[in-house]
Amino acid sequence: MVPHLTTALNGPLLDLERRFLSAMPNIEHWFRRQWLDHAAPFYASVDLRNSGFKLAPVDTNLFPGGFNNLNPDFLPLCVQAMQGTVQKICPEARGVLLIPENHTRNLFYLQNVAQLVTILRQAGMLVRVGSLLPEITSVTEIALPGGAVVKLEPLVRRGNRLGLEGFDPCVVLLNNDLSAGVPDILKNLEQAVLPPLSAGWYTRRKSEHFAAYDRVANDFAGLLSIDPWLINPYFATCSQINFQERIGEECLAARVDEVLQKMRLKYAEYGVKHDPFVIVKADAGTYGMGIMTVKDASEITGLNRRQRNKMSVVKEGLQVHDVLVQEGVYTFENINEAVAEPVVYMIDHSVVGGFYRVHTGRGVDENLNAPGMHFVPLAFESCCTLPNPDCGPDDTPNRFYAYGVVARLALLAASLELEGGED
Amino acid sequence: MVPHLTTALNGPLLDLERRFLSAMPNIEHWFRRQWLDHAAPFYASVDLRNSGFKLAPVDTNLFPGGFNNLNPDFLPLCVQAMQGTVQKICPEARGVLLIPENHTRNLFYLQNVAQLVTILRQAGMLVRVGSLLPEITSVTEIALPGGAVVKLEPLVRRGNRLGLEGFDPCVVLLNNDLSAGVPDILKNLEQAVLPPLSAGWYTRRKSEHFAAYDRVANDFAGLLSIDPWLINPYFATCSQINFQERIGEECLAARVDEVLQKMRLKYAEYGVKHDPFVIVKADAGTYGMGIMTVKDASEITGLNRRQRNKMSVVKEGLQVHDVLVQEGVYTFENINEAVAEPVVYMIDHSVVGGFYRVHTGRGVDENLNAPGMHFVPLAFESCCTLPNPDCGPDDTPNRFYAYGVVARLALLAASLELEGGED
Repeated sequence: MVPHLTTALNGPLLDLERRFLSAMPNIEHWFRRQWLDHAAPFYASVDLRNSGFKLAPVDTNLFPGGFNNLNPDFLPLCVQAMQGTVQKICPEARGVLLIPENHTRNLFYLQNVAQLVTILRQAGMLVRVGSLLPEITSVTEIALPGGAVVKLEPLVRRGNRLGLEGFDPCVVLLNNDLSAGVPDILKNLEQAVLPPLSAGWYTRRKSEHFAAYDRVANDFAGLLSIDPWLINPYFATCSQINFQERIGEECLAARVDEVLQKMRLKYAEYGVKHDPFVIVKADAGTYGMGIMTVKDASEITGLNRRQRNKMSVVKEGLQVHDVLVQEGVYTFENINEAVAEPVVYMIDHSVVGGFYRVHTGRGVDENLNAPGMHFVPLAFESCCTLPNPDCGPDDTPNRFYAYGVVARLALLAASLELEGGED
Repeated sequence: MVPHLTTALNGPLLDLERRFLSAMPNIEHWFRRQWLDHAAPFYASVDLRNSGFKLAPVDTNLFPGGFNNLNPDFLPLCVQAMQGTVQKICPEARGVLLIPENHTRNLFYLQNVAQLVTILRQAGMLVRVGSLLPEITSVTEIALPGGAVVKLEPLVRRGNRLGLEGFDPCVVLLNNDLSAGVPDILKNLEQAVLPPLSAGWYTRRKSEHFAAYDRVANDFAGLLSIDPWLINPYFATCSQINFQERIGEECLAARVDEVLQKMRLKYAEYGVKHDPFVIVKADAGTYGMGIMTVKDASEITGLNRRQRNKMSVVKEGLQVHDVLVQEGVYTFENINEAVAEPVVYMIDHSVVGGFYRVHTGRGVDENLNAPGMHFVPLAFESCCTLPNPDCGPDDTPNRFYAYGVVARLALLAASLELEGGED
């Protein structure tokens, strides 16, 4: 499966890719220095948008699902990166307890769990999967398409150690984003918990991530002498919003207007002919719930009941109070007429693969990670670490290198964010 | 290209592979602990012999050629391992000066140099190649089959820094095994030299490597409760040999006899029906010069002039004084009737690939790395880190995992050896 990508515009982004390519030794040297001072998250995935004139991260997930969507040819890369991470952060560890999201019917997600188990096993770890679900009271095997099986087991807490029946792991690996808070059974564990509990969405804020990304993008743009806007979307926040009771609408409309105004100036500077739009979304949480596309501040005050209901809750039924207004980045990558959004996966600070979310029913200015969104994953055909200076800057390996660079910038921002949030 | 391997015997080795597979978490945990205490060599290749009843390293090269023979699909693994190594040992480095062997006509070797340049570049380094050859007085481009070009440049020494015209590198990377000693231009450099000069064949001794391997193999065999002989060839040494003047022949014959006697006991214990043989080779040096197969001590005292001449010099015309007598390990891997010897490549402590030396004209008891030996390289079809417990222990991915384990044991022995040899 070879993705055929078309990019509607090939002006500024080509230039950006060319700069990335020619500055590669400086870029890699810069990253190495950053990783001396900052510990990368255990793993992460970054959603990118490529508008042809701008390449930017729009979301950074510290509990990535979707490892099953990566190109199977790059499984060895995942295994090697996992071995390196384990060697660095928990070399004495043997047993890993993987705690996934509370899904038992989402087979796509469970395939991701199965893939994580495979990666950890191939890296030489003893791995078992413990479920937070109260209904998992005994070993429960779930068959997956393709013949694999995920075995969910009930968690057993003994004092300050978490394990399973007959399994006392050294490390607890979370693939659960803790949207609803930290369950008591995970509190005060003596084992290492990776990523740290403070990376959970119950406390994490997208605005803090993008504030950290501002710093990273500015530094990096200085290194390359580029306009940081080319890799960084504007954003603003509003707190104490209540969509259902129409509280905070004026604040939100004002922020939307500010971001749109700043975008208009940049669009004029770069000769971009499209209408600017912003994405309004919950400042905490994931899964693309509570998200809307806005092209004019007046849309905020004119929301109908259905729209307000949709915006007011995210995953686990949590109320939305803090809202992020983020510059919308058009996606101009298309695969057979369908809109495609790249997602890059990292283990520690190594890029290990990626895939495109391909969605035929959505427009270039819409969020592609939305509930009910049945995207088709299309694995990257080549990895993100093999740029070829003999090819054009927008040729696949070079474009993927650029994706890997911007994804690592977001990863670095997540490192800064987690340092700030350490308990 | 899929290698079709046949193994004549499938008794004890199958059992060994089965133990490796079932003990994988313990094995990887053990290796992680070792790498906490010992720094792996920058890179290495290990020649293995697989006799069906025994799997053992017979040579460990700390300046590996042959990266061009690896499966190109695994280039990303090499790049990722290189990035990890650079991050660990010289994160501040940007420029790398690669110093190859003094070949200008050996296109096979120069393809290895080109591949190393590619790996280092993809890892984000600035790389140039400096030649020790006096005849390289200006930039010399050598075209390679396939269209690549290797550019050799004359070395420039400024005070205690080594570089090229217009290039002041942070690191000097040797791909030259220093058989003839350390050239003055490499002495007392203020830059990091990798691997260290003390890894050169001018001072390195195979017997020291295999003495270190004895310790490693015994520890590892203890971990798995196996007979260390299954992964370790017997050896003995003689010094002050002069083949041409027939000095030391009695000593050598006695050592040969001792090793053969010990082997006969093991062959009897394991029911091996073949005739034991030993390999007599120079204790220093490489390229398979000065090597012979001996099945009886009487052959040593009966050498004719031609055989004695052949044994008395190795690469760079060096005289052989110290001789290693190593248990010969039959190779029972065949590819289309041709004898095949696996070679495993590592960067830092990661296995990054391997290939078979396939040679139609040689017997199962002969050395396959010999002058004039035109082997056909056959890249491993899968990497060495993806064992599959659902397949038989001798299925390709599992056999390759076993190869990766034994190769890493030899790598660890090289680490101990280099620690002993630090200046």
